[in-house]
Amino acid sequence: MKEETTKTQVTVLGLGAMGAALASALLAAGHPVTVWNRSKRPVPQGAVRASTVSAAIEASPVVLACLLDHRSVYDALGPSAAALRGKALVNVTSGTPGHARSLAAWALEREIDYLDGGIMAVPPMIGGPGAFVLYSGSEAVFDAYRPVLDTLADSRFLGADPGMASLQDIALLSAMYGQFMGILHAFALVGSAGVPATEFAPMLSGWLTAMGGFVAEAASQIDKRDYSIDVVSNLAMQAAGYPHLLEAAVEQGVSPALLAPLEPLLNQRLADGHGAEAITGVIELLGEQK
Amino acid sequence: MKEETTKTQVTVLGLGAMGAALASALLAAGHPVTVWNRSKRPVPQGAVRASTVSAAIEASPVVLACLLDHRSVYDALGPSAAALRGKALVNVTSGTPGHARSLAAWALEREIDYLDGGIMAVPPMIGGPGAFVLYSGSEAVFDAYRPVLDTLADSRFLGADPGMASLQDIALLSAMYGQFMGILHAFALVGSAGVPATEFAPMLSGWLTAMGGFVAEAASQIDKRDYSIDVVSNLAMQAAGYPHLLEAAVEQGVSPALLAPLEPLLNQRLADGHGAEAITGVIELLGEQK
Ligand SMILES: NC(=O)c1ccc[n+]([C@@H]2O[C@H](COP(=O)([O-])OP(=O)(O)OC[C@H]3O[C@@H](n4cnc5c(N)ncnc54)[C@H](OP(=O)(O)O)[C@@H]3O)[C@@H](O)[C@H]2O)c1
Ligand SMILES: NC(=O)c1ccc[n+]([C@@H]2O[C@H](COP(=O)([O-])OP(=O)(O)OC[C@H]3O[C@@H](n4cnc5c(N)ncnc54)[C@H](OP(=O)(O)O)[C@@H]3O)[C@@H](O)[C@H]2O)c1
Repeated sequence: MKEETTKTQVTVLGLGAMGAALASALLAAGHPVTVWNRSKRPVPQGAVRASTVSAAIEASPVVLACLLDHRSVYDALGPSAAALRGKALVNVTSGTPGHARSLAAWALEREIDYLDGGIMAVPPMIGGPGAFVLYSGSEAVFDAYRPVLDTLADSRFLGADPGMASLQDIALLSAMYGQFMGILHAFALVGSAGVPATEFAPMLSGWLTAMGGFVAEAASQIDKRDYSIDVVSNLAMQAAGYPHLLEAAVEQGVSPALLAPLEPLLNQRLADGHGAEAITGVIELLGEQK
Repeated sequence: MKEETTKTQVTVLGLGAMGAALASALLAAGHPVTVWNRSKRPVPQGAVRASTVSAAIEASPVVLACLLDHRSVYDALGPSAAALRGKALVNVTSGTPGHARSLAAWALEREIDYLDGGIMAVPPMIGGPGAFVLYSGSEAVFDAYRPVLDTLADSRFLGADPGMASLQDIALLSAMYGQFMGILHAFALVGSAGVPATEFAPMLSGWLTAMGGFVAEAASQIDKRDYSIDVVSNLAMQAAGYPHLLEAAVEQGVSPALLAPLEPLLNQRLADGHGAEAITGVIELLGEQK
């Protein structure tokens, strides 16, 4: 479709914080960029503003949509779907796997090549180190526009299921929020006793890094569906100690709400006879592993 | 009280997994050890078994209690409190800060020098690298027996409040469980789409390590009580995206229970006018920072 030496013309729909960052990174890499935004927003230097979605789409073989949410993608693209026919649509708007799959079906019906993306970065990271974007859906689009995508962030293709990028994006964010909840709860606890957060932070950081070994340990137990291997600390002991965590929070005037939901799961696993196994088995109570 | 060159006689009460590990590490470092356990358990090689708690206490100037819980410490020590008078009691049994404070008060009335400890390690780590124990209460006991304590793990003294070691121990564990919840949820999500956990683990690990920067970032916001500084991703955007995480879980047949409690807190902060600030401000809804 194109050669790596020529620069690809790219259309960016959406000039919010992220859309603007994407457009700027493309421009910085030398790609001609056409932009469209619903309302008047400042246009990144060097980009060409299109006054309609159709005009924006017509300018390029590949359209990058970075809008607020699923609904706004339909709002923006719906009336201009015909213009997209035969083109590549790379949608990096956040949504659920279901959203991505329904948009992919919508695109398929209209002969639009659909690639879904999940951006794992904040806008200032775009075009710099550390940022990565998960993609899934059309591998042809991914391969053809890889040089374009690589100017934004490290690009990782996860297969043909258009929902997969969003799923893994959401899984990463979910894990991050779990980590955030634990961190905020911990700071609230020590703060209730007058310990400055900055004093406690280095120990907390080191501890969480050390406990991060759980990821690899849990993964092998999960894949084998055997929670009796590599048990460093058994579930029965953890179930016995967990109420202390909630009690300590209450003693200190801290809400136990963020930690509370694990307790019934520990107790359920214990009641089901898994006390000697690892805590990882709790995953069996969360949903079916395929 | 003692010189670093001589070896201190130590009494260990409790020969569960952790008590046995403590006794073994002391013995390995050359300390004569007297042990007591409620029921007959194998005695670590080289240790002397005492048949009563009083006899065990009388054997040493310092008594290390490592029992199941707060109640078991009273059960074991209550009838032999007189024997402890003038001695050092180092209690590393897990409990809440309130438990530690009440035991310290009990000890004070009986002229027992009380040091509370929170062990941040599993038994196989005792005496090796990476293990640490948080102590608080009597600094005199900590200083006098530091060489003994240092044979168990890296020793950290957190001040005179006997509840402080337990508080920070519990804060670290709470943060760890938050991290675990996020990790298990993430594995459940990708597992629901057939992605092996071991395939997803490296990306998850790298992501959580990168997101660990939140600890230091949040700490400075918390101490300044200013959540408008260093905002990388504002709360309004996070509150808008959070329902997708819960929806995606439900779509995939995964329970959203572990992530659910953060949602109302995000919405509350948004309603209170903190949408442009960092997510860290959620801590204000958890409890009072002193
Ligand atoms: N910012 C981040 O840290 C980050 C990180 C990863 C992923 N993302 C994702 O990237 C996407 C964009 O985020 P952002 O930070 O750029 O958000 P933003 O600053 O709030 O911008 C939202 C964009 O969507 C447009 N929009 C909203 N409703 C629309 C509608 N009904 N029809 C057409 N356009 C509509 C807005 O246009 P107007 O200017 O006319 O309102 C604006 O261009 C989101 O899905 C977000 O989850 C963001
Ligand atoms: N294992 C870990 O990974 C770990 C890590 C950090 C902290 N800790 C803490 O260390 C402490 C001991 O843990 P552990 O792993 O050694 O537990 P454990 O293997 O279950 O041993 C429990 C010990 O407590 C004794 N005990 C229970 N109830 C008693 C009572 N009413 N009166 C007298 N003794 C009683 C038991 O005596 P019997 O033998 O007679 O039952 C046994 O010696 C706990 O507070 C735990 O939270 C453990």
